[in-house]
Amino acid sequence: MLGDVVELSVVVRDLEAAVERYTRLFGLMVHHRGESKEFGFKNAILPIGIGHIELLQPTDPDKAVGRFLARHGEGVYLVGFECQDIPGAVAHLRREGARVDGRRPDIAWVHPQDAHGVLVELRHRESYG
Amino acid sequence: MLGDVVELSVVVRDLEAAVERYTRLFGLMVHHRGESKEFGFKNAILPIGIGHIELLQPTDPDKAVGRFLARHGEGVYLVGFECQDIPGAVAHLRREGARVDGRRPDIAWVHPQDAHGVLVELRHRESYG
Repeated sequence: MLGDVVELSVVVRDLEAAVERYTRLFGLMVHHRGESKEFGFKNAILPIGIGHIELLQPTDPDKAVGRFLARHGEGVYLVGFECQDIPGAVAHLRREGARVDGRRPDIAWVHPQDAHGVLVELRHRESYG
Repeated sequence: MLGDVVELSVVVRDLEAAVERYTRLFGLMVHHRGESKEFGFKNAILPIGIGHIELLQPTDPDKAVGRFLARHGEGVYLVGFECQDIPGAVAHLRREGARVDGRRPDIAWVHPQDAHGVLVELRHRESYG
């Protein structure tokens, strides 16, 4: 069900400081920047290999990304894995009692409490980038 | 410098519970088990795609893995990236002021405080598994 890691989301306190450090230390480049009022973050996408690193700064302490930062400090928040059959994976996970947000055919999320602290994202090949 | 993610180390409280969950929910299989008295953990390696997930349970609360669990709870502890030129990467990182353990030609580690909470591992292709 889980293929290669294609996304790694890292929660940071200061997006600009993190972008400066990741580009300078690791030779990465920013491919895209975005912001989500709904989910309370701003982000930068830095491609690596077949996928990307996403640096995420919370903009709302009461939403999930902000709560993660307050509770855990900076670090890996979400890992996205290649998955060729999202609806099949979602059905299997639900049968096994996992909490899954599986409303979309191309991407799904497994609750971190069901994966020992990892917010697992399942991504279909067309949805990388 | 950073290629694909080839290792994802997840610190867990109970290795057997985590192995049971990751195999049942995600269809993974245990390829190898190990223990390190020096670094204070026991682990299980579960292949995915070109790399693997490592589940890590601390066996000594005073060593790095145990301190991570006490401070952060369960979650992603280390991310290993493919890197074709470890000595070149280590030299670059040191010039840029990052703290790097680069004693070996095939694997190196960047201090998590220099990568916004991510313990970055650089791995040469021959050192996956």
